[in-house]
Amino acid sequence: MKSVGIAEFFSKNKQFLGFTSPKRALLTAIKEAVDNSLDSAEDADILPCISVTVTPLHDDIVEVIVQDNGPGIKEEHIPDVFGKMLFGSRFFAGISKRGQQGLGISAAVMYAYLSSGEPIEVTSRHVSEQTGVKLLLTPHIPTNSATIIQREDCARESGITVRLRLIGQLTEGPWSPRAYLEQVAIVNPHAELSYNVAGAEPLVFKRMINVMPTKPTHVNPHPHGLEFGALISMLHSSTSTVLKFLKTELSGVNTRAVSICKATGISSRAKTGALSGDEIHKLHTALQNADLAAPPMSCISPIGSEGICLGLSRLTDTECSIADTRSPSVYSGTPFTVETGLAYTGSDIAGVLFRYANRVPLLYQPGSCVMTEAAKEINWKAYGLSQTNGLPNGLFLLAHVTSPRVPFQSESKDSVANFSTILHELKLSFQACGRQLKTVLDKEKREQDEVSKKKYIKQFVPHVSAALGEILTLDEKHVTATENSLYDLLGLKNE
Amino acid sequence: MKSVGIAEFFSKNKQFLGFTSPKRALLTAIKEAVDNSLDSAEDADILPCISVTVTPLHDDIVEVIVQDNGPGIKEEHIPDVFGKMLFGSRFFAGISKRGQQGLGISAAVMYAYLSSGEPIEVTSRHVSEQTGVKLLLTPHIPTNSATIIQREDCARESGITVRLRLIGQLTEGPWSPRAYLEQVAIVNPHAELSYNVAGAEPLVFKRMINVMPTKPTHVNPHPHGLEFGALISMLHSSTSTVLKFLKTELSGVNTRAVSICKATGISSRAKTGALSGDEIHKLHTALQNADLAAPPMSCISPIGSEGICLGLSRLTDTECSIADTRSPSVYSGTPFTVETGLAYTGSDIAGVLFRYANRVPLLYQPGSCVMTEAAKEINWKAYGLSQTNGLPNGLFLLAHVTSPRVPFQSESKDSVANFSTILHELKLSFQACGRQLKTVLDKEKREQDEVSKKKYIKQFVPHVSAALGEILTLDEKHVTATENSLYDLLGLKNE
Repeated sequence: MKSVGIAEFFSKNKQFLGFTSPKRALLTAIKEAVDNSLDSAEDADILPCISVTVTPLHDDIVEVIVQDNGPGIKEEHIPDVFGKMLFGSRFFAGISKRGQQGLGISAAVMYAYLSSGEPIEVTSRHVSEQTGVKLLLTPHIPTNSATIIQREDCARESGITVRLRLIGQLTEGPWSPRAYLEQVAIVNPHAELSYNVAGAEPLVFKRMINVMPTKPTHVNPHPHGLEFGALISMLHSSTSTVLKFLKTELSGVNTRAVSICKATGISSRAKTGALSGDEIHKLHTALQNADLAAPPMSCISPIGSEGICLGLSRLTDTECSIADTRSPSVYSGTPFTVETGLAYTGSDIAGVLFRYANRVPLLYQPGSCVMTEAAKEINWKAYGLSQTNGLPNGLFLLAHVTSPRVPFQSESKDSVANFSTILHELKLSFQACGRQLKTVLDKEKREQDEVSKKKYIKQFVPHVSAALGEILTLDEKHVTATENSLYDLLGLKNE
Repeated sequence: MKSVGIAEFFSKNKQFLGFTSPKRALLTAIKEAVDNSLDSAEDADILPCISVTVTPLHDDIVEVIVQDNGPGIKEEHIPDVFGKMLFGSRFFAGISKRGQQGLGISAAVMYAYLSSGEPIEVTSRHVSEQTGVKLLLTPHIPTNSATIIQREDCARESGITVRLRLIGQLTEGPWSPRAYLEQVAIVNPHAELSYNVAGAEPLVFKRMINVMPTKPTHVNPHPHGLEFGALISMLHSSTSTVLKFLKTELSGVNTRAVSICKATGISSRAKTGALSGDEIHKLHTALQNADLAAPPMSCISPIGSEGICLGLSRLTDTECSIADTRSPSVYSGTPFTVETGLAYTGSDIAGVLFRYANRVPLLYQPGSCVMTEAAKEINWKAYGLSQTNGLPNGLFLLAHVTSPRVPFQSESKDSVANFSTILHELKLSFQACGRQLKTVLDKEKREQDEVSKKKYIKQFVPHVSAALGEILTLDEKHVTATENSLYDLLGLKNE
């Protein structure tokens, strides 16, 4: 019997991380690199500018180059960031960012090396450094680390360029790199993206706003849904008194801390490590039943209704866009926020749902995702839309779940698990959009009705003025004046 | 930036391991314990005898006790087996067993502790020891280890009993512990299983055969589908000559090793570590294109057609069972075998597919599994069956994929990824069953036709004998004799 290394484990289970078919592997590698570039630029308050270049080389080998204008990585960190799985800054951070687990890019590096046998090239200049560096790396699976096989200085602006060669298949269509970048552009109006494939016109998504998204900050776990065992672990690793623990290591409890201590009969000055199993049980029950404040929104950075509407306006042939951002809620002690959007086309195309988690498009496994379920459970007919197979016709729909810990169904991050609170929030948000859309559609209909009514009335104005002229024996000048007065009265123009 | 422990990673991503809803968590915990019990008994050549007891306690807490008659575990190994993730004997073994990754039972232990806050009780007596031991354990997530909080000697037969208390929900129906054990019983006719729930009659699945399944043995990787990078790693960690490497560290190459060396121009005496990138590339291409022997079957232990038919006979209201076991094949350098079975009911119920991987029933996510896809892609009408939504009516279907490395789509091991060779083998196997079934059904139909024909002829026998009697002026004795001769001739009985 012996221990298995994490890289060994994933090298034999690459499909868990999205590296299944050559088609999907190429998409996943691009996705991981772009996610990292967006996160690091935002961390450094730099408006992201990212280019993706894909070049089929020979046999099944495809080269992917992703270049960014972010803050770069210091040379000593490059081998770990690109060659060590479960290494990163986000896992314990408790903030909502694209990357969470320190797995993505090192998984792409591992897949690239295992499939093509070629080393990975990373060029980086950290903002604090005068010159950049270019490294050739190969991952070493048994030790979950990377070996530098070549190093040279190089001149460049700050940022990172990563070059991967891997067995991949470049395709077009709904699960292609192009479709992925189009969907990235919708929820990142502050980013400039370009996509280059040999022999084709570069595709550029221009920046639409020059404002950075709000930066999320760390937030303590919220007690609602916090597991009994997880609370025990927290209490045992804390050195505070119970009162201080409740106030400073959990969120949402602050003003209730004293009353919770009283209700459970636990001394507020007791050390957390000294609590008996029975006392912890009482404390856990009291926390579950307490009417606590919602967790602070600050660990979450939603796109906001305006941003979503702006992004949806990138879609062609849409008449209007509507969006809704919910207040934060909690699942299993973790805050999350959902946002939804609708782009109305006025046609009767089958509805299309774009799903996002922390601003990252989810392309695969829509059927098992809570966002799809929520969209299909809405009675869209109530908002004046027809509905086929659950989704409303004539709409592009957008759903976004953002959280320091999005509950994905697997490491390949394709779909979000069905927690009932998440489903509920999504449905409320879609319904809010539906009501807004109905208001817009009803108003449009009223306006159209008014226009046709006025058009109808308009044709009688000359006859009424002529009749008045005859009855009152007015001259032609007065008849015209009467006619104009009537048009004015009805808010019409004489044409 | 820092490293994240494997247990920390999975404690925040419990849904990856099948611990989502309380209902599913209970099922997963039972599954992991039963899988381990079956594997360890088989390893020790003991016919498995396993009992599962489920008792709802209070609130949402459910107690699960799984007891086996296996070889037990030595005391010093108990904390690691139950409290350390990615620890085990199978990951590098290259044989087809239920457990592969050393994750399952330690994940169940972690979930139990985090959800209920209660320690885990393990009782074990190793076959080599005189007395047993009872340990109370709690897992310690940051260090991926378990702490012993209580220890006492205890008397018992060899084997293990594990007691978990966890937040769970006991249900009936298709995804229940009962349904799971029923499906385990079908593919494990050599095991005796019992299922006990307070207040209900124990459910016992009797042993049907007293023969152990063939024990799988280790087999080297097969080159077909072996990735370029994986070959580089193998060559670099070997100290052999190229010829010896090809003959002894890969399977299926032996007789071709010399000709492959010649074709690539690589000296058969060259050390593997001294090959250039270009030479490795040539070697890889030559191996991919060579007509190699199939990998040895010995790393795989299929159930066999007889076993499957026996198992399917546990199902009530079936008329006949048919099964097919394919020869082994290869995906990505890994051997696998598929088996399928059909149980014909003669009714027009909607078809039901039981999916298995290494004799473990897969209950969730049938839609994304290659086995479902294969069953639905068959034109069952060609075999005389009607077909609704892809599956044939009137049948229970069984599919089994066995391999040292089943390509699951996620750690929760719900569905098998769609590798084209696996899909192809499954379809061929289902088709073989389909043809067998058609032969049986056709024969039945012919026999029925013959019966009705004979019945029709039978009614003329007395008249023919009477007529012959008249023509030949026979006495009554002779007429009866003639009648009996005619019945004999037609293979009918005089009734």
